[in-house]
Amino acid sequence: MKKFEEKTLSSEKIFTGRVISLQVDKVELPDGKTGKREIVKHPGAVAIIALTDENKIIMVEQYRKALERSLIEIPAGKLEKGEEPVLSAERELEEETGYECEKMEHIISFYTSPGFADELVHLYVAHNLKKKENAAPLDEDEFVELIELTLEEAQNYLLEGKIQDAKTAYAVQYLLLKKAMTS
Amino acid sequence: MKKFEEKTLSSEKIFTGRVISLQVDKVELPDGKTGKREIVKHPGAVAIIALTDENKIIMVEQYRKALERSLIEIPAGKLEKGEEPVLSAERELEEETGYECEKMEHIISFYTSPGFADELVHLYVAHNLKKKENAAPLDEDEFVELIELTLEEAQNYLLEGKIQDAKTAYAVQYLLLKKAMTS
Repeated sequence: MKKFEEKTLSSEKIFTGRVISLQVDKVELPDGKTGKREIVKHPGAVAIIALTDENKIIMVEQYRKALERSLIEIPAGKLEKGEEPVLSAERELEEETGYECEKMEHIISFYTSPGFADELVHLYVAHNLKKKENAAPLDEDEFVELIELTLEEAQNYLLEGKIQDAKTAYAVQYLLLKKAMTS
Repeated sequence: MKKFEEKTLSSEKIFTGRVISLQVDKVELPDGKTGKREIVKHPGAVAIIALTDENKIIMVEQYRKALERSLIEIPAGKLEKGEEPVLSAERELEEETGYECEKMEHIISFYTSPGFADELVHLYVAHNLKKKENAAPLDEDEFVELIELTLEEAQNYLLEGKIQDAKTAYAVQYLLLKKAMTS
């Protein structure tokens, strides 16, 4: 879809980092005027809805420097260069939770902040978890604590504002909706 | 929540723009080692679930330069400096759709990309819409097309990947869940 396309007149690279890069594009707006767009480029990410044998949702609590606080989130992580999203989901599940699964089901991919960033999150459901022996470790700058929540607990966390991460809020609603549809 | 806190050792300002700013923080990790965090600062945003008298969801299609394509989204926009989120929601609803409402109900606030940005989106439901005469216009660099979708159409758009915006996907699920709970 190209409606209201903004043609790039020039693009200035501001920063290239380990995770993101930043550019400012000068664009021609649909009315012929010019404007500037500040754009963050991100490699994309995966997130995983993983339920234990006791039907508990596996969450990770981790510190988010951008917020100066920790958040409760479903397992997630950045795509590595050239990595297929489904393999990234399997890798992140193993690294963050120590589990592997029989099947990774893709349910949706969404842009998290389309106003200024191109991050696309691919969301999966991991079916039939098994604890993996000698699971791959976390990245050396990652520190997480695992939390297991029943769907009811997760719903309460959502209502009480204890879950404040968009992909995790989506995941909880997804499970609530699935339950409502099948009961 | 401060679990696994990362202390700031130094912070380098890379860019200050019209919408976002970028900094790189050197941090002390929980194990005493040091790391770097690339952080985008954003003023925060609002998004509005607005239903017409015919129970159709008002969406806007707009070009997103970061993605080089247009997206279908619920009405949304950035907070202006010092602006209360609820007033921002009323303003954005008016500017983007020409409607005002009797009541703005806050339903959730979530961080969209906590791995690299502090953007917090406040999501509202606008109750009892009325067309506003002489509604405030869009910002001069904004071009949007209004679309009205039934809940069933929106659900199909979600399943078919025509809705790929996180807050909008959440909004559609919210309405589906509400319907499932009350029917």
